[in-house]
Amino acid sequence: MPPNNLPLDADRLWTDVMALAEVTDPRSPYTRRSFSPLFREGRGWLARRFEDAGLAVRIDAAGNLIGRLNGKRPELGSIALGSHSDTVPSGGRFDGIAGLAAGLEVVRALGDAHQRLDHTLEVVDFLAEEPSDYGLSCVGSRGMSGALTEQMLDMAEPGGETLRAALRRVGGNPDLISEARRNDIRAFLELHIEQGIVLESQSLPIGIVTAIAGIRRVEIIFEGAADHAGTTPMPLRRDTLVAAANTIVSVRHKAERLAAEGDGYFVATVGIVNVEPNASNVVPAKCRMVIDMRTTEPALTERFMEAVEQESARHAAEARVVRAPLVVLSDGPPATCDPSLRAALRRSADELGLRAADLASGAGHDTAFMTRICPSAMVFVPCRNGKSHTPEEWADGDAIASGAAVILNAVKSLDQSLPRTAREDRMAV
Amino acid sequence: MPPNNLPLDADRLWTDVMALAEVTDPRSPYTRRSFSPLFREGRGWLARRFEDAGLAVRIDAAGNLIGRLNGKRPELGSIALGSHSDTVPSGGRFDGIAGLAAGLEVVRALGDAHQRLDHTLEVVDFLAEEPSDYGLSCVGSRGMSGALTEQMLDMAEPGGETLRAALRRVGGNPDLISEARRNDIRAFLELHIEQGIVLESQSLPIGIVTAIAGIRRVEIIFEGAADHAGTTPMPLRRDTLVAAANTIVSVRHKAERLAAEGDGYFVATVGIVNVEPNASNVVPAKCRMVIDMRTTEPALTERFMEAVEQESARHAAEARVVRAPLVVLSDGPPATCDPSLRAALRRSADELGLRAADLASGAGHDTAFMTRICPSAMVFVPCRNGKSHTPEEWADGDAIASGAAVILNAVKSLDQSLPRTAREDRMAV
Repeated sequence: MPPNNLPLDADRLWTDVMALAEVTDPRSPYTRRSFSPLFREGRGWLARRFEDAGLAVRIDAAGNLIGRLNGKRPELGSIALGSHSDTVPSGGRFDGIAGLAAGLEVVRALGDAHQRLDHTLEVVDFLAEEPSDYGLSCVGSRGMSGALTEQMLDMAEPGGETLRAALRRVGGNPDLISEARRNDIRAFLELHIEQGIVLESQSLPIGIVTAIAGIRRVEIIFEGAADHAGTTPMPLRRDTLVAAANTIVSVRHKAERLAAEGDGYFVATVGIVNVEPNASNVVPAKCRMVIDMRTTEPALTERFMEAVEQESARHAAEARVVRAPLVVLSDGPPATCDPSLRAALRRSADELGLRAADLASGAGHDTAFMTRICPSAMVFVPCRNGKSHTPEEWADGDAIASGAAVILNAVKSLDQSLPRTAREDRMAV
Repeated sequence: MPPNNLPLDADRLWTDVMALAEVTDPRSPYTRRSFSPLFREGRGWLARRFEDAGLAVRIDAAGNLIGRLNGKRPELGSIALGSHSDTVPSGGRFDGIAGLAAGLEVVRALGDAHQRLDHTLEVVDFLAEEPSDYGLSCVGSRGMSGALTEQMLDMAEPGGETLRAALRRVGGNPDLISEARRNDIRAFLELHIEQGIVLESQSLPIGIVTAIAGIRRVEIIFEGAADHAGTTPMPLRRDTLVAAANTIVSVRHKAERLAAEGDGYFVATVGIVNVEPNASNVVPAKCRMVIDMRTTEPALTERFMEAVEQESARHAAEARVVRAPLVVLSDGPPATCDPSLRAALRRSADELGLRAADLASGAGHDTAFMTRICPSAMVFVPCRNGKSHTPEEWADGDAIASGAAVILNAVKSLDQSLPRTAREDRMAV
């Protein structure tokens, strides 16, 4: 039941989503990889739309495209909205894009209503949220939150270009990266498609994110012997794939149990398996697997890791193979969304007659980095069958417009209710 | 304890093994792929050694290099010895080569002793025993046993060249392939390294092969959904890797049980696993695995297949994924070695004071095809740690010489004891 009384222009918002989505590699829609010529083309379009909406456009040192509308009392700092315009290869039309278009529509809706905020209002297109060829995701939000290190800037894509050089290409300035760090943002809100099926399965139009799961990725390598598959009797084998298969089964069982306990969001996945030599007539001599585990409660990850440590060692011993020490490939802590901002979003949804549910985000988002420098929160809107990172990705125009309206009204409310520092209050006198 | 009283020249035999092994791609010793320039170079060397030993050399229609020494009563037919000179990539110095050098040394030892057989004696370098880029193994022995079909000749390597064309390049004649089929061979014997650890672990110098396991290869494909590893709750997943991992565990358990029952040789291996998309943050949407099963008792394979069929279906249902019907990629029946030839080899070993044990071959060999056209048997010699198809592959010179001596004495015995047809006896009058 789409609400027709939204305080914004749902068609204009939808037109923007579709227009940006069309800036794609025609051979593999929808592809607009960060740092590519198409990415810059998309940003050119976006900058013009920002300007048309009355925003002053700049690119900060971390390569973020920022549209800014000064508030009546700019000393109060900013309320920022945003998401990202880059995509995975053969991705969808909504992941990131919906959040940018929603932010832009909030600005326009306020302008149409001649409502000027006390706070400065900004819309941010964060650079390279998706994993890029440089081996790093959330480049722009890392930069804006002071988490983009010199070491990260030295990462290089397979062709040898460093992230540092790529950042320069898109208008950032790696030499002044610390200047990208912001301390004047008082609230950050991001709209995003859910990329899951919770909202859809419960026919809920709005999700209010409680926390963004931390992601730990762990590599397990088993080493055995490349014995002849025909001549090596079963008891004499040192088969690494058997150890890995038993470990995959253990991972699944343990993850199911932790998730069912309900002490917090928990999922774990073995998504990568590499077998060597991967030949039908050779006992697998080496097997590598990567476990991706996500939780809002770090204690669950610790319990899970302990189980994986023990089980994988047991399976290795049974298969007479060697399990190398587990290697943590990456480890991001969970990020908590701000309770005041969540309450504002909830009130806004209620006022609009939109049912909303709290839910955790299993996927990573720029908001996770923004929580490090300011109160931040997210609105999820349903997407069809939970599909994302695929051309099938789909969110209804009404769903996106509803989420944008929730943010619009929350912004108006926060503009008045956000805590002000003593200094700001003095200046306001 | 190497026997020093062998009726042949162990040093000469060893020199041949090392000399042929040296014809290798220097970047990846020991590599002499069938149909390659190096393969032809190796055969050139081998042809000269054949001629030096008094053999008349030819290449038959199936591309086999054959050295022939007519017997005193050529109407009796041939006793043939042989193996193959091609290698896998980065293979060893003994697999195939040891059998060829042994055959050549038998000819020379008989010549040195001025012993001319009644039967014609042949040494065969079978074409392309190892899997080649054309997707077929045992090309030459298939041809000699009438099992090389027109369809097989149409198989092509990735560059597009057909086996038919490649066969022509190495001197064969695909248009006259039926002429390669032999019906005049009365006995075939092959020496080969064991490629396993049974002989070594029991300090036995000689293995007499009872049967060569049949190999069936079966492909299992599971199809599920490429869900987001972060946002898809555990109970909603359709994870193909979980189904595959459970199936790998079932394959292992069932193979262990069948092997332990002792009703025949049985091994099964999952050597290939392909995961799609094989990304850490995506639930595996597709998983392919290949099971290699080998036995001397086809009934065991049938029991195994029944279990795999049931277990894989159960695991697929539990993981909420679809298991495609099992696909048999290849299916070769086991081949039984001739009891009379085995008895002759056993007597020969006894006379030489070499302890011998019966054992099954889990690996495929040209002998498996030769059993289709004549009584055939094999002698295994120990190889270090059972390693094969690797540069580490190693067999002691004494071990190869001992095996060659067992064949030499068996050949002398068989020359007199092989059954002769009425016609042959008439001609002998």
